[in-house]
Order: sequence, then C-alpha cells, then structure tokens
Amino acid sequence: MLGLGCETNKEWVERVAGNPSVLLVDHAHCEKKAALMAISLLNRYPEHTELVDEMSDLAIEEMSHFRMVLKKMEERDIALTFDPGDSYAQELHTQINKQEPKKFLDKLIVASLIEARSCERFQLLSERAEDVELREFYLSLLVSEARHRNTFLHLARLYFKEDVVKKRLDEFEAFEAKLVSALPSEAVMHG
Amino acid sequence: MLGLGCETNKEWVERVAGNPSVLLVDHAHCEKKAALMAISLLNRYPEHTELVDEMSDLAIEEMSHFRMVLKKMEERDIALTFDPGDSYAQELHTQINKQEPKKFLDKLIVASLIEARSCERFQLLSERAEDVELREFYLSLLVSEARHRNTFLHLARLYFKEDVVKKRLDEFEAFEAKLVSALPSEAVMHG
Repeated sequence: MLGLGCETNKEWVERVAGNPSVLLVDHAHCEKKAALMAISLLNRYPEHTELVDEMSDLAIEEMSHFRMVLKKMEERDIALTFDPGDSYAQELHTQINKQEPKKFLDKLIVASLIEARSCERFQLLSERAEDVELREFYLSLLVSEARHRNTFLHLARLYFKEDVVKKRLDEFEAFEAKLVSALPSEAVMHG
Repeated sequence: MLGLGCETNKEWVERVAGNPSVLLVDHAHCEKKAALMAISLLNRYPEHTELVDEMSDLAIEEMSHFRMVLKKMEERDIALTFDPGDSYAQELHTQINKQEPKKFLDKLIVASLIEARSCERFQLLSERAEDVELREFYLSLLVSEARHRNTFLHLARLYFKEDVVKKRLDEFEAFEAKLVSALPSEAVMHG
C-alpha cells in the first residue's frame, strides 16, 4: 500500500520495542529535520504556490510533532541530546539528480519515501512497543505520515508527467529497499 | 521600551506605507527565516530544555505567521518570489562571537534585537499603511514580536549573568542603531 520495496526486518522491531529512550530522541530529531526539509523546499521553489502552501502547513505539523515527542520524553525523564544526523536519509539524498528540474522531482520522491518508511515503522511500533502509552502515540502519527507521503506524491504528479514520476519512483524504491535491508537494526527510526 | 538605540527614520515609513507588494514578500521571508533561526538554536543547544521548548513554540508561531502573510498576498494577487537574503540580519550576525559560550549569548541578543526592530516597524505600519486592512494585521503582529523579544532576553538572563547580558546588549544596541541609521530606506522590512 505504501509502495515500499521491502518490509522492515524483525530484528529492528525487537531492538526498538523495549528501548524507548534512544528511539524517542532520534524520533524528535526526525520530526525537526522533516520541518527543515519542508521549509527548504518552499525556500527553493517559491514560484510553486501549492508546494509553498503544503510545505508551510507541513513544517507547522512536523514541529508540533516535535513538541509532542519532547513531551513524551519529559514524562519519561529522557533528555534531548545532540543530533548525530541520519545516514539513511543522507544516503537517499546522494541519489538526487544535481540538475533541475530533475532535482526537484527527486527531492519530492525522496521525501515521499522517507514518510512512507516512517509510516511503516510507526505501524510496527504501534503494535509492538512495550510502553503501551507510546503505542497510541505511534498509531496517531502513522496516519499523518501516510498523509504526508501522499502529499509529496501529489505534488510530484502536479509538477511532472505521470510516466516520469513513475520511472523515478521505481528507481528510488529499489534503492531504498536495498538501503533498508542493509541497515544494522540500531534502535533509531531509520536504524 | 524596546531598548532600541534609534528610531526608524521617516523616509522608510513613507516608502513602504503605499507599497505593500514588495514589503509583503519580504515580510513572508522574514517570518520563514525567524522559524529557521529558532530551529537552528534548538538544534545547536539541545541540552537547554527551556530554550528547546521556547524555540519549538516559536518556530510553529513564525511559520503560522508566514502562512498568514501568504494569505494576505494571495488576496492581493502578489506572488512569492526568491528570497534575496536580508543584509541587515547578516550584518548583525557578523558581530556574533565565534567562541562558545559567548556565541550562544550573542545569538540570543541578536534575535532579541531583530524582534524589537520588527516590533517598532510593525507599530509604524499599523499606523501608516495605506491598506487599512493590513494595519490591523500589523497591529496583531507587533504584539507577538514584543513577546518574542522578551523571550530571547529571558533566555539570555536564564543562561548568563545579568551584568554580562547587559554589557553585550549595550554593545549590540549601539551597533544595530548605526546599522539601521545607514539603511537605504528600501521598501523591505529591514530596508
């Protein structure tokens, strides 16, 4: 349904289900980076009115999620620490074409895939997290991530032809599937 | 009241009062950059819980203002264009100490001054803008800017001693006053 080329392996779920401290800190940083990515897109392509509208709404929503994650952390006495970066997202970004307008399309596709993978992983967490109160939280978030994934695909299809979108989406889906299969199952969102 | 070293000159008010198109586009970009600055601060100093809380709220509020400015633009058929940058803010940033923790204090002080100057200019616009509907808008924003200025000063005093804050604030106020007096009265927020 999410158009992902592979499922997250069981080792990751087992690793994170009982380890909320590391996951929550990393999750907060993911929400913050999603907001930054939305602002970066509207900053780079201000002439696309629908993109600007969607991305400003998205930035507000992602920062609201960041706030919600911070609250879950405070309730559990978990402190925010320095963001070490996200090698999964960085790897996806290396595949973005350097030339416009391909660069624009690739950015939208990469964003849609990151949202889709987050959605899939929140689904797993909503079923398997040992902290029952967090299951509810992840369930509420997975609905948002699925919506965001659709927003990025809608924008891609608004600004590019369907066959061009489909070809590039297939290529990125294959790359993302390989990337995810090779992840070391660390206790972070994209581990 | 705002602790600014000089008032905005009359030429600027006369220039912008009847020229909302350029001003609104620039204003939108100012709100976006204010959100980015807030995220950048919480990203750099994640160990300061109160800063992180305040900056995440601020980022949400600034992006909501960005949305509001976009709406005013849409109603007037004004399109967003590429952000050429803000030389006033850039000049202020050149004065930020390169070494921590002075760098942290300077960033808070610079942010407080930018908010204070915006507040002063929104006050002028709320009285003088020829577009009467925009006067109301500027009036609502000046209250927020005054509050944000106080937030940054509160944070500066939370993390640094009062005499250290006062000394640096005096230095930056003098620098900002010179900078503003030399601006060419262009039809932008910090022109």
